[in-house]
Amino acid sequence: MNHFTSIKDVPNLQNLLQSAFEVKRSPFADTNLGFGRTLGLIFFNPSLRTRLSTQKAAQNLGLNAIVLNINEDGWKIETEDGVIMDGDKAEHIKDAAAVIGGYCDIIGIRSFATFKDRAKDYQDFVQSQFQKYAGVPIVSLESATRHPLQSFADLITIEEHKTTAKPKVVLTWAPHPKALPQAVANSFTEWMKVADVDLTITHPKGYELASEFSDGVKVEYDQTKAFEGADFVYAKNWSSYSDYGKVLHKELDWTVSADKMALTNNAKFMHCLPVRRNVVVADDVIDSANSLVLEQAKNRVVSVQTVLKGMLEGMI
Amino acid sequence: MNHFTSIKDVPNLQNLLQSAFEVKRSPFADTNLGFGRTLGLIFFNPSLRTRLSTQKAAQNLGLNAIVLNINEDGWKIETEDGVIMDGDKAEHIKDAAAVIGGYCDIIGIRSFATFKDRAKDYQDFVQSQFQKYAGVPIVSLESATRHPLQSFADLITIEEHKTTAKPKVVLTWAPHPKALPQAVANSFTEWMKVADVDLTITHPKGYELASEFSDGVKVEYDQTKAFEGADFVYAKNWSSYSDYGKVLHKELDWTVSADKMALTNNAKFMHCLPVRRNVVVADDVIDSANSLVLEQAKNRVVSVQTVLKGMLEGMI
Amino acid sequence: MNHFTSIKDVPNLQNLLQSAFEVKRSPFADTNLGFGRTLGLIFFNPSLRTRLSTQKAAQNLGLNAIVLNINEDGWKIETEDGVIMDGDKAEHIKDAAAVIGGYCDIIGIRSFATFKDRAKDYQDFVQSQFQKYAGVPIVSLESATRHPLQSFADLITIEEHKTTAKPKVVLTWAPHPKALPQAVANSFTEWMKVADVDLTITHPKGYELASEFSDGVKVEYDQTKAFEGADFVYAKNWSSYSDYGKVLHKELDWTVSADKMALTNNAKFMHCLPVRRNVVVADDVIDSANSLVLEQAKNRVVSVQTVLKGMLEGMI
Repeated sequence: MNHFTSIKDVPNLQNLLQSAFEVKRSPFADTNLGFGRTLGLIFFNPSLRTRLSTQKAAQNLGLNAIVLNINEDGWKIETEDGVIMDGDKAEHIKDAAAVIGGYCDIIGIRSFATFKDRAKDYQDFVQSQFQKYAGVPIVSLESATRHPLQSFADLITIEEHKTTAKPKVVLTWAPHPKALPQAVANSFTEWMKVADVDLTITHPKGYELASEFSDGVKVEYDQTKAFEGADFVYAKNWSSYSDYGKVLHKELDWTVSADKMALTNNAKFMHCLPVRRNVVVADDVIDSANSLVLEQAKNRVVSVQTVLKGMLEGMI
Repeated sequence: MNHFTSIKDVPNLQNLLQSAFEVKRSPFADTNLGFGRTLGLIFFNPSLRTRLSTQKAAQNLGLNAIVLNINEDGWKIETEDGVIMDGDKAEHIKDAAAVIGGYCDIIGIRSFATFKDRAKDYQDFVQSQFQKYAGVPIVSLESATRHPLQSFADLITIEEHKTTAKPKVVLTWAPHPKALPQAVANSFTEWMKVADVDLTITHPKGYELASEFSDGVKVEYDQTKAFEGADFVYAKNWSSYSDYGKVLHKELDWTVSADKMALTNNAKFMHCLPVRRNVVVADDVIDSANSLVLEQAKNRVVSVQTVLKGMLEGMI
Repeated sequence: MNHFTSIKDVPNLQNLLQSAFEVKRSPFADTNLGFGRTLGLIFFNPSLRTRLSTQKAAQNLGLNAIVLNINEDGWKIETEDGVIMDGDKAEHIKDAAAVIGGYCDIIGIRSFATFKDRAKDYQDFVQSQFQKYAGVPIVSLESATRHPLQSFADLITIEEHKTTAKPKVVLTWAPHPKALPQAVANSFTEWMKVADVDLTITHPKGYELASEFSDGVKVEYDQTKAFEGADFVYAKNWSSYSDYGKVLHKELDWTVSADKMALTNNAKFMHCLPVRRNVVVADDVIDSANSLVLEQAKNRVVSVQTVLKGMLEGMI
């Protein structure tokens, strides 16, 4: 594995899943694999699960993790090419990436969509600059368009809890007070298309995902209909792609409630967290026995440890 | 030991002290005890001694410490139950606690009093949510009401420096420009009541500690009288409990001065730090040969290493 | 080595260089040297290269590194002596230094010039307080007046790339929108004076370095003349020392351009980073094959690992 930034970097998903289940069974099987290696974790944005789970996975692999909140700990980063840097940005991203690549064997990067320029967001600009200039494998810790370590953990969780060969998985849009990126929804869709599931996406009109993600996926604008027969309900808010970054719908009629969950095939409830309770999902759903949100969070250690292990094995 | 949040979590103080003296003699006796274990250090508030001493203790035990300034590194935390989360708080404390508990074998938490609601502060609300939802042992790194690792280090220091079987210990209130929590004073009182010392508290009227802490303790409102015959003078500011969070007295007449120390039995001077010099205590007192403040700070490694060691031994 | 704060702390530069080349060849030759030892990294200011390279070097030596952004993670620090601390500063530097020294075997400190008081800046006030009160060896991670780990890495880089016994090295001032300290220029000058190079400094009038650094060094006010025959061009901005902290010249006529580099003896281009592209140096110079900026950054691991190794060997 060279980089890990999307499902496209996974040559064989079944093999990756098998590796994940081994990692979960024996988390300390490779405690010397990372000896003398350094993992740089570069955060342009906040992180709780990703930060903790990745540090824990690194420790399990004997890998030295160094965390950098780059804009606060380091210098404000310029991302425009060819610019005369006489403003408030002290370091160019191409220099920062190359320098960090000189210190680290693997770099993880979190850089959210900024909603200023859709084309630039959808090039995953910051992450791609690191891919271009760092000279070492890059792991996405959530980019503008994708969150593959989350999607991989989600898939592990579904595999562990499915009771039929091809479960019905519903990705439902849910309300949120702020404009959020499409990354989790894009990425979940992308992984589910390759996995052995029957995927339906439901959202209000105007919230269609970019066609590179939604192509070939069933979209049902009636949330109630979408929930019928679902084995897994994955809730997530995202802002509009077509009217880029806009919040078109704030009413709580799309909140995942116990009434709606009653329409499903006793579906498991999923969310990547953090979650706005009683906006995205009602307390009684997320706190129910059918909620998998903590299983998903725990599997974040498994997904990232599996990916890092694969990269380290490729370096020996 | 399940949790370590107050003296009540200590089944036998003499045994704990003996363990502490062993840790101090042989800090590297258990360098493999923490193998494969993760300690999460969650800070809602600033920390210097606690942060450094706990990381050092973890290292001495071979324990992986992960530090999180939760509100800056992670997401702003909602603490109200049942609320519709449509404001600026992105994650509920019950979810954060459960997720962190999924990654960590032990969690340390620092969460100060907020002075908004005395009843909630005195429930140690944030810490108790972690105790309720994290599913792993919790170590207080200073809660709204107590600072037990500090009190334990203070007691170790007193044991090391006492010259009589039952020394006279005076806890004296001292001035400060800001409203500070009662946590250190509460906790010190609680520990001294169980320890083999003769405790007197002195403070201006209106600064009485909550009765659950001060019950059974001699209170002397005349600072001069209180200092007579003291073997240890422990200075600390706190705000009013009865007129909750108020600063009732700002004048420097309660500052611990060399003149006042002259009234004691050549008493040792103690303070938990950080300290406002020439407000809480005069330079010539804290810089004197009788000052134990640096000994107290060094014993913070001993107290936390002893507690973590006990927890880890209970997990084997 | 007691402290490492300037070239004056280096008893024999050739020996130090030999040690550096050994560290570079065999970075994992001493992975147990730091066992049980703690390195405190105290940042009063931002850092990227220093932060990452020092953590990596510590890991290579088996040394426990603890990072503290002291004003954010800890308490705001008072630096005035004898003051009544009733303002916003909660902890005195002499207490913080002594406490940190109680936890750490070596302390690294970054504390930039504040431009409020030249005499105080040029005493390296914060760093010298740590030297006075911490009781353990201090490593400068850039002080108000010097950046010796950078200068050492720069010298390693020059040694690796020189093609004549005594290369011509030109330190050229370059424009910058903000007032920067003289530390890098001072320190580079100080190291080059001891090294086996022919040093010329070039800058506009008014940018003369303090005489303790510039004494005995050739100064050429005509940048074009200075570049003639240069083997290495080291670019750096600094603010005025005589008109302390002032920016006297903002025009881009001093920017290092390809035209100017054409005047040299095919000189290598050097800068410590972070760099303002197209202000300090043109893109086509820093991105050329002659640019050593990434080599310098990589050698930061070597310089700090060599210094830490020397200190640890002295402690055995």
